[in-house]
Amino acid sequence: MPDDRLAEELTSVARETADAARGPTLAHFRARGLAVDNKLDEGWDPVTAADRQAELAMREVIERRRPDDGILGEEFARREGSTGLVWVLDPIDGTRSYVSGSPVWGTLVAVADDSGPFYGIVDQPYIGERFEGGFGKASFRRAGGGGRIKVSGTSSLSDAILFTTLPEIGTEAEHRAFRRVANQAKLVRYGLDCYAYALLAAGHIDLVIEAGLNPYDVNAPIALIESAGGCATSWDGGPAHAGGTLVAAATTELHAAALEALSG
Amino acid sequence: MPDDRLAEELTSVARETADAARGPTLAHFRARGLAVDNKLDEGWDPVTAADRQAELAMREVIERRRPDDGILGEEFARREGSTGLVWVLDPIDGTRSYVSGSPVWGTLVAVADDSGPFYGIVDQPYIGERFEGGFGKASFRRAGGGGRIKVSGTSSLSDAILFTTLPEIGTEAEHRAFRRVANQAKLVRYGLDCYAYALLAAGHIDLVIEAGLNPYDVNAPIALIESAGGCATSWDGGPAHAGGTLVAAATTELHAAALEALSG
Repeated sequence: MPDDRLAEELTSVARETADAARGPTLAHFRARGLAVDNKLDEGWDPVTAADRQAELAMREVIERRRPDDGILGEEFARREGSTGLVWVLDPIDGTRSYVSGSPVWGTLVAVADDSGPFYGIVDQPYIGERFEGGFGKASFRRAGGGGRIKVSGTSSLSDAILFTTLPEIGTEAEHRAFRRVANQAKLVRYGLDCYAYALLAAGHIDLVIEAGLNPYDVNAPIALIESAGGCATSWDGGPAHAGGTLVAAATTELHAAALEALSG
Repeated sequence: MPDDRLAEELTSVARETADAARGPTLAHFRARGLAVDNKLDEGWDPVTAADRQAELAMREVIERRRPDDGILGEEFARREGSTGLVWVLDPIDGTRSYVSGSPVWGTLVAVADDSGPFYGIVDQPYIGERFEGGFGKASFRRAGGGGRIKVSGTSSLSDAILFTTLPEIGTEAEHRAFRRVANQAKLVRYGLDCYAYALLAAGHIDLVIEAGLNPYDVNAPIALIESAGGCATSWDGGPAHAGGTLVAAATTELHAAALEALSG
């Protein structure tokens, strides 16, 4: 964990990096004729011009202000650094929402060291919202408002609002494990991608469970949720920042209950 | 269909009615300790103080400006009118999104006569967006922008972005029918309630299919989509404004393809 002065610098760079994505992502959002390539042969994973332009703009900020840090982004090759710090970037998390005109996608910026992410931003420029967390606090800002945020106090599955992105989550076995949790939750909702983690950090929902994740999907959410007082691990209780599975919960009790249900 | 002067009056009243809901809905959105009652014994249908306060505020506008029209709202008893016109109101469509802090709920205002709704508003006050349609045109407004909207030209299921609210849509038979369409669509997404109809009217998505609907869920979306050039019927091709099932599509070709797949 960096000292105060470095913390201030990293926060400033992170915010400028998220700001830099706003122009490119908003320029293409809800534009007709959005170019959508098929990135993966086996599935429909839309990648847009906006995604690439935004990541280039984000990388420009980091390369200028923190030239010796590493960069891991969704769209371009990993850049190795020499400081031990790595910036983990996803210009548009929730591309399926993005191409549908639904404003619940986000731009993710995280700073990580060997032990994982310690600062993260989830930015939603169309609505004009920024959720950020690190260095012991988490906050929310939008035009005309904002302030500190923290997770809810929900401790049991039967009181929990649970989100995941896709109902057909993960592998067959992962889907069955997810259903064991979902069947006990008060409410299950779908389709928000990173925005669900922001709602969890701000105390509006209680639990997010996902599988099939990439590192750039999870680093910013993990830092945000931990800074807001929540708990985020893989489904087997280990570190989640390398990708794969993630259980993010408002409280340690709820997290333990979710892990137990997932393990069957 | 009313003459121009009545059309102008109804449009003005509809906008004031949607405006009146904004205070109560926003006052409770993302507030901790939101009161949630169980309206239906068999399910979890959250009804909040916001819902009731907003509908009272909406009814006040109509009772003052159009005292002889009927009112059909979600929360309070139907008011019979003498003009042949009925206002169909849903102060918060998407209450599950609302209680989760997700801004993809909406306030619905429609004006209908015996043949169905001919004017509708889908209003999202947190994001600050209004989609409205009637009298031959549809439009979108938000701070700093807006303009006319129309549906996409998508004509085949394999090119269509399809939304529905819940993956477990409707009865068992309805769920199987829905899956026949979903399996042919380019992309299937969940969880937006009325906001999906707004995205359809604005050309961002192509198809919305739902079941188990109430009249106040569908009147405003139907008027909006038809005004934007789209097509909305029940799953058997009949009028949909009485509730039940709804297929809303960007084009008649896509609508026909969806009906055919639904009927097996």
